[in-house]
Amino acid sequence: MAPQRRIDLVLDSVKRLLRIGATANLLNLLQKQHPADLAQIFSEFPEKDRQATFTLLADRNGRLAMEAVSELGPEAGATLLATRPAEEIAKLAQEIPSDDAAALIDHLPDELSAAVLDLMRPDESGVVEHLLEYQEQTAGRIMNPHVFALDEEMTVGEAITELQTNRDVEMVFYLYVVDERRHLVGVTSLRRLLLVSPETPLKRIMTADLISARVETDQEEVAQQVASYNLLAIPVVDEENKLVGVITVDDIIDVIKDEATEDIYRLAGVAGDERAFTPARESLRKRLPWLGVNLATAFMAASVVALFEGTIERITALAVFMPIVAGMGGNAATQTLTVIVRGIALGELTWGNSRQALVKEAIVGLGNGVVLGLIAALVAWGTRGNPVLGLILCAAMIINMFVAATAGTLVPLGLRAANIDPALASSVFITTLTDVFGFFSFLGLATLFLRYLVPMA
Amino acid sequence: MAPQRRIDLVLDSVKRLLRIGATANLLNLLQKQHPADLAQIFSEFPEKDRQATFTLLADRNGRLAMEAVSELGPEAGATLLATRPAEEIAKLAQEIPSDDAAALIDHLPDELSAAVLDLMRPDESGVVEHLLEYQEQTAGRIMNPHVFALDEEMTVGEAITELQTNRDVEMVFYLYVVDERRHLVGVTSLRRLLLVSPETPLKRIMTADLISARVETDQEEVAQQVASYNLLAIPVVDEENKLVGVITVDDIIDVIKDEATEDIYRLAGVAGDERAFTPARESLRKRLPWLGVNLATAFMAASVVALFEGTIERITALAVFMPIVAGMGGNAATQTLTVIVRGIALGELTWGNSRQALVKEAIVGLGNGVVLGLIAALVAWGTRGNPVLGLILCAAMIINMFVAATAGTLVPLGLRAANIDPALASSVFITTLTDVFGFFSFLGLATLFLRYLVPMA
Repeated sequence: MAPQRRIDLVLDSVKRLLRIGATANLLNLLQKQHPADLAQIFSEFPEKDRQATFTLLADRNGRLAMEAVSELGPEAGATLLATRPAEEIAKLAQEIPSDDAAALIDHLPDELSAAVLDLMRPDESGVVEHLLEYQEQTAGRIMNPHVFALDEEMTVGEAITELQTNRDVEMVFYLYVVDERRHLVGVTSLRRLLLVSPETPLKRIMTADLISARVETDQEEVAQQVASYNLLAIPVVDEENKLVGVITVDDIIDVIKDEATEDIYRLAGVAGDERAFTPARESLRKRLPWLGVNLATAFMAASVVALFEGTIERITALAVFMPIVAGMGGNAATQTLTVIVRGIALGELTWGNSRQALVKEAIVGLGNGVVLGLIAALVAWGTRGNPVLGLILCAAMIINMFVAATAGTLVPLGLRAANIDPALASSVFITTLTDVFGFFSFLGLATLFLRYLVPMA
Repeated sequence: MAPQRRIDLVLDSVKRLLRIGATANLLNLLQKQHPADLAQIFSEFPEKDRQATFTLLADRNGRLAMEAVSELGPEAGATLLATRPAEEIAKLAQEIPSDDAAALIDHLPDELSAAVLDLMRPDESGVVEHLLEYQEQTAGRIMNPHVFALDEEMTVGEAITELQTNRDVEMVFYLYVVDERRHLVGVTSLRRLLLVSPETPLKRIMTADLISARVETDQEEVAQQVASYNLLAIPVVDEENKLVGVITVDDIIDVIKDEATEDIYRLAGVAGDERAFTPARESLRKRLPWLGVNLATAFMAASVVALFEGTIERITALAVFMPIVAGMGGNAATQTLTVIVRGIALGELTWGNSRQALVKEAIVGLGNGVVLGLIAALVAWGTRGNPVLGLILCAAMIINMFVAATAGTLVPLGLRAANIDPALASSVFITTLTDVFGFFSFLGLATLFLRYLVPMA
């Protein structure tokens, strides 16, 4: 059965059991679900049912309830948790790995999160507070500080015994090896332990050349390393190369998704942390400033048109065709911008090979301009009976699509060189630029060649 | 040292060694690199150097050369390979896992790929051809058919021996268990083998309830399962539940990146397989049709303006302000569309909770319209001295931003309900819609209230 179909069935049953108040059966059903499925069920519930179900489950099986909350993501998870008293949250937070707990607590309202940290066991709250000291979106912030490591002086037999006694270790496909002061010195695998005799020193079967991340490394860079070296986990070290945590590939997948979302959003002028169900008031607050900036730039484009009001007064057909020049430039710019921004994000486009990309985009821009400009010219000529109007439309489209292509390439590359996120060269911004250029080239040419246009008016 | 910085240094050395023809040193340096780093180096080289370096490395260390080509991705990898004779490609293809080989061979020119398959060992080409029979973007197409499995009748001790003798098995963190007819019946882990005595039957420590994918499952759905259940690999079964392959999380990461790229691209009207360095001619061929469609819709918007040419002739100021109404609607629509399309892609937005999203977007649209409309009205009144022009501008902006919000929500949700990719409701398309509505509402209102506007002209 397709997973979504199965969840829909479970969802129906949960709703029914909730409605008839069959608590025992409901708990039974909930406890059989994977945390990820529970998260999906929570997210499809209306607010009230979500809280009722969560409360019920949290009383019976705190760990499962918290794992589900964690799968909801820190924002939605914290919103759900925030309805519970601080004592309960403090108790529940201890059921999940400290990195997940830290992410949730960080998203609680300030007062509540302080209260929760106060009420947690000192050892646990210490770990969480330590994690929260790292900057957001760094390796330190997303790592799991409970990392299992073997001493380099051990034999393979001792290592296996160590693994057998530490049954609650989370990640064991890579076995990191440290010296007596916990400096990271190597890595081996469970598999390799099985291929040699128990007396073999660990040192002999470990790989000393391993890839690690520093606590302050940006999470996007960490994700790129894990992805390009096909790792399942990456160890995190401090400035002295001491092993302080591990980031597993499932967390990396979340980073990759979040970074892709951020890029998609920025291209459209949306804040990275907005989601489909962010409350309307908050969405409004987040989107308005960006639209405000765009309103200002739209007035700039309008003032270009105003420069040529005299020309439009004589030939109103210009008002009909000018949006075509501006709009097609905007569309072409959006295409170029998207390819360039994504190329940078995927690491395919670097400063070294950017000239090649610029030349290519310029050619494509000119090509598009010539083909579409000619078509537009023919339509304008045909409908208005004036070949000069067609020629001017064609010329303006070629100019504007060339500008669109070069700006769509240079602006994100320039931002990147200045260490600013290239996705901020959003299509919303670039299209304003093509509006200005489009209006200016079209109306400017029309004003220049006004005497050839007038007879038709 | 940051990875990019290290690669830059290696790149400089490689270039220098290549220039002075120090082949032995060059090979030495290349062979020390990780395939992913080699791929990065290849991609930063000009065409000629890339081929020279690849040829050199392929002669010495075919496997490493092919792993690097594989890391380049199938398109770029196949382009590089295609410069070599078919015999050599056939030999090299056997150095890498069949799924990677299949992806590369699939992207070679038809004639060459047929020749390569003819020249490969029959057992190898058989596997590759079998993989290529699966539909693109399905689990069957991206799985590795060499999957290690244990017989359910084994004991733990026998399983460990089996692992020790199969040294070249790729993926061993999950150990899949099959019955005598190779039906997938369970899963266990290397870790669990170590925690019990060797006589324990495998059946007793395996989990029978495991998540698998069918060969025909869409790769995006597989990726969602792996991501939401935090898996490191997922077994692939045929219609009889026989184990036929495995997909590891590194391939899933590639799928997630590709699907995100596809979404970003579609929103901008770019073909999913275009990259920053796709040749200009091909990019032109891929982008022109979409721009052509948009030219047609732009003419539609223009014809709306043409309806009101009489009004514009009397009040040219309308031509100045009309792009503001259309443009701001377009920007607001892009924001809404992006949030909705991403919400659908991330699985947060379903049919069940879409009403809530629509209400929210409608409120945000109205709110944006009122705030920005009032500001625009004040500017128009201030610069043109006509309050009625300001009022009409404000009303048109409110209408258009409301239309933008509802269309930006309903169009992708509708496409999704019709099983069409919602990202195809690209911002390029939606903004044309807001152009039409923007021009119509603004110029229509102006025509209706013409007598209040004329005094100012």
